[in-house]
Amino acid sequence: MYNIAIAQSGGPTAAINASLTGVFTEAAKNPMIDEIYGVENGIEGILSDRLLNLRNILMDEHDITLLMHTPSTILGSCRFKLKDHSESEEDYRKILETFEKHNIKAFFYIGGNDSMDTVLKLSRYFAEKGIDIKVIGVPKTIDNDLPETDHTPGFGSAAKYVATSLQEIIRDSRVYSIPSVTIVEIMGRDAGWLTASSCVLRANGEPAPHLIYLPERPFSPEKYLEDVKKALDRYKAVLVAVSEGIRFPGAHYDDKKDAFGHTQNAGIGKILENYTKEHLNCKVRSIELNVMQRCSSHIASLTDLNESKRAGEAAADFCINNGQTGVMVVLKRLSNNPYRVEMLSTPVENVANKEKKFPTEWINSEGNNVSIDALNYFLPLIHGEPMLEYRNGVPVHFRLDQ
Amino acid sequence: MYNIAIAQSGGPTAAINASLTGVFTEAAKNPMIDEIYGVENGIEGILSDRLLNLRNILMDEHDITLLMHTPSTILGSCRFKLKDHSESEEDYRKILETFEKHNIKAFFYIGGNDSMDTVLKLSRYFAEKGIDIKVIGVPKTIDNDLPETDHTPGFGSAAKYVATSLQEIIRDSRVYSIPSVTIVEIMGRDAGWLTASSCVLRANGEPAPHLIYLPERPFSPEKYLEDVKKALDRYKAVLVAVSEGIRFPGAHYDDKKDAFGHTQNAGIGKILENYTKEHLNCKVRSIELNVMQRCSSHIASLTDLNESKRAGEAAADFCINNGQTGVMVVLKRLSNNPYRVEMLSTPVENVANKEKKFPTEWINSEGNNVSIDALNYFLPLIHGEPMLEYRNGVPVHFRLDQ
Repeated sequence: MYNIAIAQSGGPTAAINASLTGVFTEAAKNPMIDEIYGVENGIEGILSDRLLNLRNILMDEHDITLLMHTPSTILGSCRFKLKDHSESEEDYRKILETFEKHNIKAFFYIGGNDSMDTVLKLSRYFAEKGIDIKVIGVPKTIDNDLPETDHTPGFGSAAKYVATSLQEIIRDSRVYSIPSVTIVEIMGRDAGWLTASSCVLRANGEPAPHLIYLPERPFSPEKYLEDVKKALDRYKAVLVAVSEGIRFPGAHYDDKKDAFGHTQNAGIGKILENYTKEHLNCKVRSIELNVMQRCSSHIASLTDLNESKRAGEAAADFCINNGQTGVMVVLKRLSNNPYRVEMLSTPVENVANKEKKFPTEWINSEGNNVSIDALNYFLPLIHGEPMLEYRNGVPVHFRLDQ
Repeated sequence: MYNIAIAQSGGPTAAINASLTGVFTEAAKNPMIDEIYGVENGIEGILSDRLLNLRNILMDEHDITLLMHTPSTILGSCRFKLKDHSESEEDYRKILETFEKHNIKAFFYIGGNDSMDTVLKLSRYFAEKGIDIKVIGVPKTIDNDLPETDHTPGFGSAAKYVATSLQEIIRDSRVYSIPSVTIVEIMGRDAGWLTASSCVLRANGEPAPHLIYLPERPFSPEKYLEDVKKALDRYKAVLVAVSEGIRFPGAHYDDKKDAFGHTQNAGIGKILENYTKEHLNCKVRSIELNVMQRCSSHIASLTDLNESKRAGEAAADFCINNGQTGVMVVLKRLSNNPYRVEMLSTPVENVANKEKKFPTEWINSEGNNVSIDALNYFLPLIHGEPMLEYRNGVPVHFRLDQ
């Protein structure tokens, strides 16, 4: 009998708690496992010994279901980079102390590229020191930018929110009789996956977004203007989906001042809005989808939630039953029709600190839209709606505290 | 036998199409009514004779249901102010020409304060000239600022979106271990109803939003800072709901310049974000819910959709069966538990160009939150979720064109 610990790290998603429930339920079934600890604020909570006994928190199926439908990280998160242990062993010793104190033999870290760096370093440290503590990663990011895995848990829900909201913004943008341009800024600093996923609306015959710009291609303002003009010839209300990672050549990202003289990081949406207003005589507005993209569990993808849970279950299975360590769970797409996915694992060094960009072969030659292959890739990921529990008109969230 | 026409005006909501289906279905049942025309872009479409035969568009129950669940105005909208006919009769003559050409004896205008000005002027003109054309208003606005009616169709859905999104933003804001302030800017230029409605989360034991600021009270930046500091003593992640109508004293709303030297109408959210950053040593961010507040039909309130449809039905009934003209449908709350609402009408001069503010007696003495009476008023309005049809992972919208 031994104990295990689970922690969450990096930016929130609508599905990261689903992965937590997956590790928990699979481990709870295993007679080898005694206590299952949830760690507050990722690796920070191990360094400072802040553990919660999840068996006392997730008491029944109803708790599990509510937690699956609760966005963001119930245990809290962190942005903490472990130093290499050749440089300093101090944090490693503290972590080991916490693990030994609580008889923790397996540690599950749910997170993205940076968190996998922690999984890599910790698992290597324990292996080198001959310490029997396993460390395993469960992928999570709305950016969908992890290598080795077909897609990442959390991405499908973000994509479903983006598509649903864009469809509504399209309706909203079409009400007046004058021509208009609506620019929607979508998350993804370095990879354009989430912005590209807005193409799914085409499957329902929606021509919008009419233009899609991704950071995988250099951005030309002149070409953009031409594109918008051409689109306005055909459509009264033009919708542009633009990744926050687009760099507008010559824009002074640091010297914008507001009314109080503060610098202000205006996003690409606002920059493009003003640029468009300057050059075209039509109504222009920009919309930032902001954090709602990553936490909108009320419009989560059922496929994503289920896969996120399965990824957690697979991690528990691979680690507890097969003794795997230093690996991350990956999703392999077996077929698209019917859509089927298998859970596998990959050595975490294949993933840590690495980034998977949106394939340039899926971007059209004009650099302003994506291909049918992209559409087919995205569609299954946003499929299905969870049955949410509502109380007083809003979805019920599982909460640990205020 | 005669024909009728329906038009939509003003800003979009998630429920304005529901009112259209209400007028349509009630009129379609009436053997007196021959054609039912939908007018494109409100009064503009009458001036330019752009009518659609709705019997050829809404063919069956499925069409009606889809349209009820489609946000924004299927017929398009306008912002058009009729001149007083003592000043110029030209537009009135054009309108009359269109109505006579198509044998239209009743005109239904779904809109807010400004649209009711059109209902008032047209109905007075026809009455003075002894012309038998009835004009009736159906209320609609997410601002909830129409007098005489307990609340306005469209408001409940916006409030449900705001509450649902705020609850998710609260989860998102709580992930890191450092103290933070999140400022959410909510629509309502002159009336604070929608911002105030965020208090509904309290019914589920959620203490956030911890602070609520409405345009009905003058805003003091110093008091705001004190409020936030006090809230930070108690809560790690403080959430502030602020109406876009708040005026920050001394802020230069017109001389903000962006990277390209354009003026930029930064919202109060961004202004408060920067002000808070300057004075408090913690993480601060601001979020603008933008047009998603008024078009998020995927999280519409079932109560609101049903009432919006009933308001349309009542308008058809009052006008066609009882000969009413120059009136607007109003909702009277009969009881809160069980929640029951009756449809009545009021002379449109009681509503046109008038505005109902959020009651100051529902604002606490500190001016930073609202009372339990407000909570009880709002709760029934966001109740219930429509059964939406999904295709390819997103709700199906009823569309007339591209």
